[in-house]
Amino acid sequence: MRDDVTRQVHPVLLCGGSGTRLWPVSRASYPKQFARLVGEESLFQAAARRLSGPGFAPPVAITGEPFRFIVGEQLAEAGVRPGAIIIEPAGRNTAPAVLAAALHVARADPQAVMLVAPSDHLIPDAEAFRAAVARGGAAAREGAIVTFGIRPDRPETGYGYLELGRDADAGARGVLPLSGFVEKPDAARAAEMVASGRYLWNAGIFMFTAERIIAAFEEHAPEIVAPVRAAVEGARADLDFLRLAAEPWGEVPDISIDYAVMEKARDLAVVPYDGAWSDLGGWEAIWRHSSPDAEGVAAEGPVTALDCRDVLLRSEEEGPELVGIGLEGIVAVAMPDAVLVAAKDRAQEVKEAVEALKEKGARQATAFARDFRPWGWFETLALGDRFQVKRIVVKPGGKLSLQSHVHRAEHWIVVSGTARVTVGEEVKLVTENESIYVPLGAVHRLENPGKLPMVLIEVQTGAYLGEDDIVRYEDVYARE
Amino acid sequence: MRDDVTRQVHPVLLCGGSGTRLWPVSRASYPKQFARLVGEESLFQAAARRLSGPGFAPPVAITGEPFRFIVGEQLAEAGVRPGAIIIEPAGRNTAPAVLAAALHVARADPQAVMLVAPSDHLIPDAEAFRAAVARGGAAAREGAIVTFGIRPDRPETGYGYLELGRDADAGARGVLPLSGFVEKPDAARAAEMVASGRYLWNAGIFMFTAERIIAAFEEHAPEIVAPVRAAVEGARADLDFLRLAAEPWGEVPDISIDYAVMEKARDLAVVPYDGAWSDLGGWEAIWRHSSPDAEGVAAEGPVTALDCRDVLLRSEEEGPELVGIGLEGIVAVAMPDAVLVAAKDRAQEVKEAVEALKEKGARQATAFARDFRPWGWFETLALGDRFQVKRIVVKPGGKLSLQSHVHRAEHWIVVSGTARVTVGEEVKLVTENESIYVPLGAVHRLENPGKLPMVLIEVQTGAYLGEDDIVRYEDVYARE
Repeated sequence: MRDDVTRQVHPVLLCGGSGTRLWPVSRASYPKQFARLVGEESLFQAAARRLSGPGFAPPVAITGEPFRFIVGEQLAEAGVRPGAIIIEPAGRNTAPAVLAAALHVARADPQAVMLVAPSDHLIPDAEAFRAAVARGGAAAREGAIVTFGIRPDRPETGYGYLELGRDADAGARGVLPLSGFVEKPDAARAAEMVASGRYLWNAGIFMFTAERIIAAFEEHAPEIVAPVRAAVEGARADLDFLRLAAEPWGEVPDISIDYAVMEKARDLAVVPYDGAWSDLGGWEAIWRHSSPDAEGVAAEGPVTALDCRDVLLRSEEEGPELVGIGLEGIVAVAMPDAVLVAAKDRAQEVKEAVEALKEKGARQATAFARDFRPWGWFETLALGDRFQVKRIVVKPGGKLSLQSHVHRAEHWIVVSGTARVTVGEEVKLVTENESIYVPLGAVHRLENPGKLPMVLIEVQTGAYLGEDDIVRYEDVYARE
Repeated sequence: MRDDVTRQVHPVLLCGGSGTRLWPVSRASYPKQFARLVGEESLFQAAARRLSGPGFAPPVAITGEPFRFIVGEQLAEAGVRPGAIIIEPAGRNTAPAVLAAALHVARADPQAVMLVAPSDHLIPDAEAFRAAVARGGAAAREGAIVTFGIRPDRPETGYGYLELGRDADAGARGVLPLSGFVEKPDAARAAEMVASGRYLWNAGIFMFTAERIIAAFEEHAPEIVAPVRAAVEGARADLDFLRLAAEPWGEVPDISIDYAVMEKARDLAVVPYDGAWSDLGGWEAIWRHSSPDAEGVAAEGPVTALDCRDVLLRSEEEGPELVGIGLEGIVAVAMPDAVLVAAKDRAQEVKEAVEALKEKGARQATAFARDFRPWGWFETLALGDRFQVKRIVVKPGGKLSLQSHVHRAEHWIVVSGTARVTVGEEVKLVTENESIYVPLGAVHRLENPGKLPMVLIEVQTGAYLGEDDIVRYEDVYARE
């Protein structure tokens, strides 16, 4: 039994990124890894479930402050109990995140085998992937730093490559020696590499023991070690989270694990993986993995395609209705508040469009209509002159801060579940089809004491309706 | 003075059409002529104002039952007082509509000169157009049937053409003899015609005296005359409207004025018009008239175009944000509930897409989120399990029917203006930031007794929330 536990793999899920290459579905406030892009669950949830079950310790997720409640909630929804949710005070790329996770894991067991993986990749065959993890784990346990190499099925120029050692049997399914890393190639070089059979895609997935990777950091990137160690040692538990100490973390350089360690370390090994894999790094990749038909038409959501070829047409379940006519080589992604239409081979330039939107101050550049909070979420349904209508959903047990507003009064109508409402000195339960009035200036609080989500319609009236008209007296989520 | 009045031109605005070639902006419930497509006012409003002022009698609008309040409201907004708003019990194409208008006008003055015009065309230079009307009016007064011919600036295959008489001086600016009508040509024929200088686009605009066109109907389309005459004689005034009698109207054949009269009549005359004109018959025409830049990019609304050429990108003022990247020859029209992306030269196929949407039961095929009613409009802001949130806007003086619901209760919160609310025996004024509750089954009524629009948020709760859960006890708009 003890042996089983020491042989467990400790998954470390990197989920602090906030890419914009899949805008408008991925936005800084709720990025790609948490979105339902392919299939029924988010990429992060799929990653957590792929690395769960026999042979795996509870996963460590490492993420940013703004995503901590999303991580907790999505893990709960996927039925995965985390080992820890580590919060980076600021994004510092992958090297500091991996080292922080390794220091955390090493406190319980320096020999623990870690599997570090991005949480925004697509790996449909979880079973095959776990078999590859088992092979990699054996090598890691013997002291190797193991990378995962995907067998290429096309000369992709969007990925880095791993070069196998000269004496490697490239067809073997075991663990092979790595000769080196190759940056994203041009088309000719990519074709050569794929033809040679000696190059694999670099998936950015690694396995090692905690003490092995800490030693590698000490050797190759010693400048990172002291501040990260101080941040981990100074970390404080906050609800379900482990919050790294902000002050030392502020001094940590922004650097990827590839540059900091992998490209310098010796004796790296590769686990070849033959199954399907994608980093879903842009809309063309989503098209590829959305089961295009014989004409190349991939359609998702309420979509009507007339005589289109080689297109991705995608809308949300609740709309808008999206119609494509006579299109070729086009990606169209429609949401109620933002629409992207791009030449398919240029969809990666959406990053520039997002910058342009930021410059003109469009909230769609970074935020969704729905605003996720520790207690649930809200969205604006209508915004008029001197009034605003919101839908507010509070999770079971969720509790908004005790607050008041200087400029607005609020009408609340509960349409689902039961609310516990405090207004001034009075506390009462308000249930479906009941309403309550919160006068301007009144100290009030909203809670969901029940077992079901509570849905409430809030109608605000007043001269100023900004989110910053709030005085907080008390908050269970330690916000200010 | 008397002479001035008899020389007035009587505009007849045809505004009963419900085309779908400009979906999603034009939908059956609120079609093209009432939409703000180019410029600040609707095409119908622009047409009404173009044919107003010195020399014009108040216009007669002829439209369908569903559009009667839109017509009234848009005329009021444009500051045009109608002579009459004639309601066709059902659409029967242009011939019966023109004849009905002529019979109506002839009752006051058989010699009255009518100008019959579609209300969904674009004619930017109102002054120049009125000068052409003055020329046409003189000929009509002398007994001619006058058509308007637009000087073509390209070999358009989407329009019918007018052939000038052999002896016409094609460059003249007066009134010329017409030799015949030419159906929409193919590209080669169109090029020939434009090169010859003897062909003009048929704008579907006509002038004649009322008695002259009635006589032409009697000669060329006698089968229409009896039922239309009976429908006009049996018409009844209803509020501001003149409602044609439904029973005889049911027997009227569906036929255009071109087929019924124009192509058979002799001695037709043409007024050439040199100014810009378009029937805005599809998105390519909207592109042409939306001031495309040097790259051919026409953008309207919150739109970001990166490296696009020859495109129309159009969104609504309130969003969504629309981004186009690397597009060429594309039309993208975004609304919160519906998005069209089409090859620009195939955008006219949107009609087929609308059919497909109808078949799958998508309300966006024919209806907007906003539902226009005689008393104002409403829209659904959120629809959930057992609840619905609506924004309801009631015009000053507007009065909903006295009604009750079997399955739902309603909370009303007034956010702008003042409502007079009847619930059971009680009548009270409810003003900004006040709410009232309408229990399930209660007989109730909502009115706006004020001088400003009244905006109210309605939160419905109940097991069934369809519009058809309504029992009407009394309705000032004579609905059932």
